[in-house]
This record gives sequence, structure tokens and C-alpha cells, in this order.
Amino acid sequence: MRDPNEQMQASWNANAEAWTRTVREGRIESRKVATDAAILGALSARPKRRLLDLGCGEGWLARELSALGFAVTGTDGSAPLVRAAQALGGGTFRTLTYEEIAGRPDLLQGPYAEIVCNFSLLGAELGALLQALRANLTADGRLYIQTLHPHAVTGGEPYRDGWRMETFAGMGESFPEPMPWYFRTVSSWVAALTRAGFQVTGLDEPVHPQSGRVLSLLLTAAPVNDTPRAAG
Amino acid sequence: MRDPNEQMQASWNANAEAWTRTVREGRIESRKVATDAAILGALSARPKRRLLDLGCGEGWLARELSALGFAVTGTDGSAPLVRAAQALGGGTFRTLTYEEIAGRPDLLQGPYAEIVCNFSLLGAELGALLQALRANLTADGRLYIQTLHPHAVTGGEPYRDGWRMETFAGMGESFPEPMPWYFRTVSSWVAALTRAGFQVTGLDEPVHPQSGRVLSLLLTAAPVNDTPRAAG
Repeated sequence: MRDPNEQMQASWNANAEAWTRTVREGRIESRKVATDAAILGALSARPKRRLLDLGCGEGWLARELSALGFAVTGTDGSAPLVRAAQALGGGTFRTLTYEEIAGRPDLLQGPYAEIVCNFSLLGAELGALLQALRANLTADGRLYIQTLHPHAVTGGEPYRDGWRMETFAGMGESFPEPMPWYFRTVSSWVAALTRAGFQVTGLDEPVHPQSGRVLSLLLTAAPVNDTPRAAG
Repeated sequence: MRDPNEQMQASWNANAEAWTRTVREGRIESRKVATDAAILGALSARPKRRLLDLGCGEGWLARELSALGFAVTGTDGSAPLVRAAQALGGGTFRTLTYEEIAGRPDLLQGPYAEIVCNFSLLGAELGALLQALRANLTADGRLYIQTLHPHAVTGGEPYRDGWRMETFAGMGESFPEPMPWYFRTVSSWVAALTRAGFQVTGLDEPVHPQSGRVLSLLLTAAPVNDTPRAAG
């Protein structure tokens, strides 16, 4: 069987065009009704300093955050997605895989006051990447991770970490390759952040405004050597 | 309609005998297979200092923690449950309602190095109580809250805070009164702690060892003016 991490990365190249159309045409309902506003709302009150959009994809969030006044750098492991982002501008975009960043944190050219991972941490190994992010964060900086809420996806499966498969069904678009992604429990997210030297300072759970169904988990974290404070 | 907070408190007097038998005969499966061990495991490595078991009920946890070496005070709003606890010993037990504690934090006679709320925070209003707990915690102390995991109980209902009803069905015992209890999302728990001057330092999610179903949410929190550290 193919390594799911490699398969995941390959899927973002194979699916780059379909994904770019899907995002730009606003065809993911959860994003339109809740999760786009959640990540923008979390950042909008912060001072407008250097911001890293890690796993920026085709760049919609970078463009929005640039419009708010942040100095945005976007990175993504998929070269075709980075080219799509560069075509519309709104930031400095570079192709960098998470493996490259984990091995050479200086490639990110930090420090940043904000690092945002919006539905972009999809692999099984997080530790070295999170440590690299921490090394690129200012002492008063914040890391924002928005991800699928485990509550929204477990169905009848056991509540534990493991690989799942996204087929992109129902997105009104043909995706050439399914994407393996690594399911994490809430406690697993918190533990991974704690191990990497972060302190969780916020935990939000955006819901569907009509159904009340929980759609995402939005974690805010601060580097632990920061001055203690009540909230991020 | 009767006020659910009053109804909840009254239910613990009406149900005291049935509850005491149910707990002492080990008839709540989730407790036997996972959540009893989770709360004991969280505390067992801590220094054996003064510990408050808030909402101690008939006292099983106080007895276990006394056996581990903690100097345990247990409080509960239900006088018959406190009498049941006193009958078996293993701590100093006092009848105190959460309203009394919220209004007069000094009644708790702190400070304590550990404060434990094991499935005992069931009402809608938490703020003043949590602040009273914080005022009774040492600077390096920890607050432990174990509660039903929202994931385990929402069913098809919207994912948002609100009153629910516990009928104690399936516990092999007749309970005279159903108990209203206040459902909270994970984010609501974290926000309540943050507002009361706590920092969440740990988040665990004990699961059923066979089915993998998530059974509880176990939060560890430190007072914010504490020295920053990586984990609780």
C-alpha cells in the first residue's frame, strides 16, 4: 500500500485545478456559512504584522488577510497551488513542503507574529513541523489551527487518531485523486501543541448557523515562554 | 415550569439513596471501564497535599484519594449524600451548595493544591463558582474537571449549550426524580475557565476500551498568574 503521507501530497498536485475552482467558486458550504468567517474573525483584531499562511493552497485566505492589512507570506507543498496563488497576488507565495520546513525551519524566514494553518495540517506527523513553527513565531505571537471537528466526522468509528479518506464527493467537481488525511481527536491536537512548546489559549467550535451542527475546531496557541495571559 | 437549577439540586436529595447504591455497587459502566481510572490517574502523580473534592456525592473519590495520601475535604450541596460520605469516612465532608460557595468563597477554607470536580458541575451558571475555586487554589495548584463529553451525548441535537434531562435509565435502580443538567460544548468549558482566570493546561478524552466511544472530557487548568509551564 502506498504511504498515505505521500499519497496526500500527490493528491494536492493532481487535484490542484479542481480544488482551485471549488474554493474560488465558493462551493464548500461549511466554509461559506461559518469557517471562513471564523478564521478571519480570530485574526481581524490582531495588530497587522507579519503573518504566515501555512498550507495556503490557492491563496484565498492570504488575499483576505492582506486586504485586512497583514504582511502575508503563504507557503504550500503543492507547486501548482502556489502558482495559482501567485497569479492572483495578495502576498508572497513559495512552494515549501512540511518536510522541508521541519528539517530546515529557517526556510520560513520568520519570525511572524501570526501563523495560520487553515484546514492545512492533514498528515500524521506534526511534532517537528509544530516546533519549526514555534521557532518562527514572535514571543507574543499566536498560532491558529482550524481543522475539521472530530465531532463532525467520526460517525460510528472509534474516537481515536488514524488515517481517513476524503473523496471530495458532493463538491460538484471531479477530483482526480482521493486524499488520505489524518483524523485527530481534540485531546490529540492539544497534546501535540503542548509537546511542541505551545500553550492552548483559545478553543472555538464554529457551528452551522441553521442546523447547529459543529463544523470545525479552531485552536489558538501561544509559545510557552511567552508572558502568561488569560487569552490569546 | 420549575427552575432547572432548583430541580437539579432537589433531585440529588430525592435520589441520594438510589445514587449511593448505584455508585457503590459499581453499576455505571463508563465509570468502571474508564472514567474512574482517568481522574485517579490524573491526580496520582501530584504531591499529596490538601485536596478539595467539590460535589463529592457519596464520597467514593474522596476515599480513593485519601488512600493515595491526599488530605481530602469533600463538599456537596446534598445533605443526605454528605451523610453517606461521612458514614464511610476518608475525608472531611461538609454540606455546602455551589451558591453558598460562590457567594462566600471563604467557606471552602482553602487554599487547596488540587480541586477536583468529577461529574459534578451540572448547572448553567459557572462563573462565580469557578472564581471561588480559583480563590481557594494555591498559585501552583490545579483544577480538574471531568464531565460528560459533548461528543457522547449530543445525538442529533444542535451543538450548543443548554439544559438536558437525565432519567438514570438503564442503571438498574429506580430514581425518584429525573435530573436536569446543563450541556456544554468543549469551547464553552474552555471559555468559562478562561473567563474565570484559569488557563487550560490539559485536555483528555477517555474512551471505552472496547468500543472506542469517547466517554468523558477531562480538563486540567491552572490559575493564570501561575508561572508558565508546558503542562499541568
